[in-house]
Amino acid sequence: MTSNTVTAFAPASVGNVAVGFDILGHALSVIGDHVTATRSATTGVRIIEITGELPREPALNTAGRAVQSLLAGRTLAWGVELAIRKGIPLGSGLGGSAASAVAAVVAANELLDEPLPRSALLTHAIEGEAVASGSRHADNVAASLFGGLVLTIGEDPPRCMLIPVPSSIRCVLVHPRLFISTREARGMLRDVVALDDLVRQSANLAGFLAGCYTNNVELIRGCLEDLVIEPQRARLIPGFAAVKRAAIAAKALGCSISGAGPSVFAWCDGQDAEAARVAMSAVFRTQGLECDSWIAPIGGNGAMITERR
Amino acid sequence: MTSNTVTAFAPASVGNVAVGFDILGHALSVIGDHVTATRSATTGVRIIEITGELPREPALNTAGRAVQSLLAGRTLAWGVELAIRKGIPLGSGLGGSAASAVAAVVAANELLDEPLPRSALLTHAIEGEAVASGSRHADNVAASLFGGLVLTIGEDPPRCMLIPVPSSIRCVLVHPRLFISTREARGMLRDVVALDDLVRQSANLAGFLAGCYTNNVELIRGCLEDLVIEPQRARLIPGFAAVKRAAIAAKALGCSISGAGPSVFAWCDGQDAEAARVAMSAVFRTQGLECDSWIAPIGGNGAMITERR
Repeated sequence: MTSNTVTAFAPASVGNVAVGFDILGHALSVIGDHVTATRSATTGVRIIEITGELPREPALNTAGRAVQSLLAGRTLAWGVELAIRKGIPLGSGLGGSAASAVAAVVAANELLDEPLPRSALLTHAIEGEAVASGSRHADNVAASLFGGLVLTIGEDPPRCMLIPVPSSIRCVLVHPRLFISTREARGMLRDVVALDDLVRQSANLAGFLAGCYTNNVELIRGCLEDLVIEPQRARLIPGFAAVKRAAIAAKALGCSISGAGPSVFAWCDGQDAEAARVAMSAVFRTQGLECDSWIAPIGGNGAMITERR
Repeated sequence: MTSNTVTAFAPASVGNVAVGFDILGHALSVIGDHVTATRSATTGVRIIEITGELPREPALNTAGRAVQSLLAGRTLAWGVELAIRKGIPLGSGLGGSAASAVAAVVAANELLDEPLPRSALLTHAIEGEAVASGSRHADNVAASLFGGLVLTIGEDPPRCMLIPVPSSIRCVLVHPRLFISTREARGMLRDVVALDDLVRQSANLAGFLAGCYTNNVELIRGCLEDLVIEPQRARLIPGFAAVKRAAIAAKALGCSISGAGPSVFAWCDGQDAEAARVAMSAVFRTQGLECDSWIAPIGGNGAMITERR
């Protein structure tokens, strides 16, 4: 017995995680987007409700495009109507376009007579997210879909590995109320990297992963540093350097830009998180920027069904 | 009671291991160098015996320079004489200069009234190895000193992490009798890398490490590939592309250049190793190149004392 209306929640996510540009992401389960998918008499995909200034044309909307991809090649006597409720601020660097795509495919999948397994949804969510980001990287999509800290390797579709994270670690996320376009933030990156920087960044990535696998918080502290992308994007975020200094002074393990920004994240060991959150937010306010902020564990679920009718 | 004469063995090593340029290395315990250190009445370091065309001036010899570094700042009434027996072919890409430096400091350390712990020897061995390579990377030195697969992070001194490797994996090492200078092989590298290549190489590095930590041989197979350095150095090795194809056809998990080459290594799962060794060697012979070849587990000891008198 299939459902006629299904609602799914997909969490926000922190892309790149300082050391894994385009390959690492982790879910931030305290905020996310909800998408309700309903079987309709008309075939095809329609967007009937959406919060925020987002395209309503399905092919141009990450949720709509993702569901079009899911349904492609199927001969169905019915269509799908999507209602999208954004919980993630637009252009915040929190993987909002990925979360909408993920919630939409997770919900619409349940309308099928034979729903696909979760892992088979990844490629459709990536297809949707590419509408917004202009590239097929899967770091936000995979984290939102599966939860936790996820490594994505390759494309079409990528392999995904869940990386264990020491359970005491918390993510502090501070979102200054600015808008940054992912597409523009990608466009400003130099297309080459110094070989020396590749070596140092590779060492940070490898040490970070070794720290995660061996539950070595101090090794993570020594390695959670982006030498390649952050220096190029930091100037988009007023006060970034001071926010980062404040986080480190408050004992954060590391602090960098979430995805394309302007949100800034810090990983902290247990009780250190609240002090970092307060200190980081205070610096943004000295720049005249209001902030939202959250503290969340790195584990946690990925997307989930929240209602069926 | 300290010894007057100590001999140490230090194994050869595979530097870079395809995915970790300058940061990963693993010991190859089946071959290596022996260094005998003897207390002499004359202060300072002297090289009294050496095999092969290597500098006898201590400051220009990796073993001599490493022991000079070890002794620096100590006021000793005696000196150290070194006898160096090379088991590792010169310019083979098997970490010979590192092994001599490591064996020398491990042996000379035992002559001290209060020998240093093994980890404190790393910085002196690096100091010695830099004489030959012209750079202070520690991938070969750390693998030779500690054994196994070692990740080195940072400098002066680097942090070293021992990475677990699935126990079924064997390294096939084929050494064609050619000479390549590490210094020249470094000099030919472009000093920038495309950002896209950094992303794909980072994914390979991360997937390789995840495979090692989770005992996932097939993940290692999918990731043990060098997209950055190997394409630039392959032309130094006649027949390299065909050797690599032969290894992969013989079910190797991956195949690349050991350090700066010309030695080529392949990782294989258990019994596949012998077929890969035969196939790779056969291709080099079609190029008119005689080969030495070995099969060894990745684990195994690092440097060790073999004799005391």
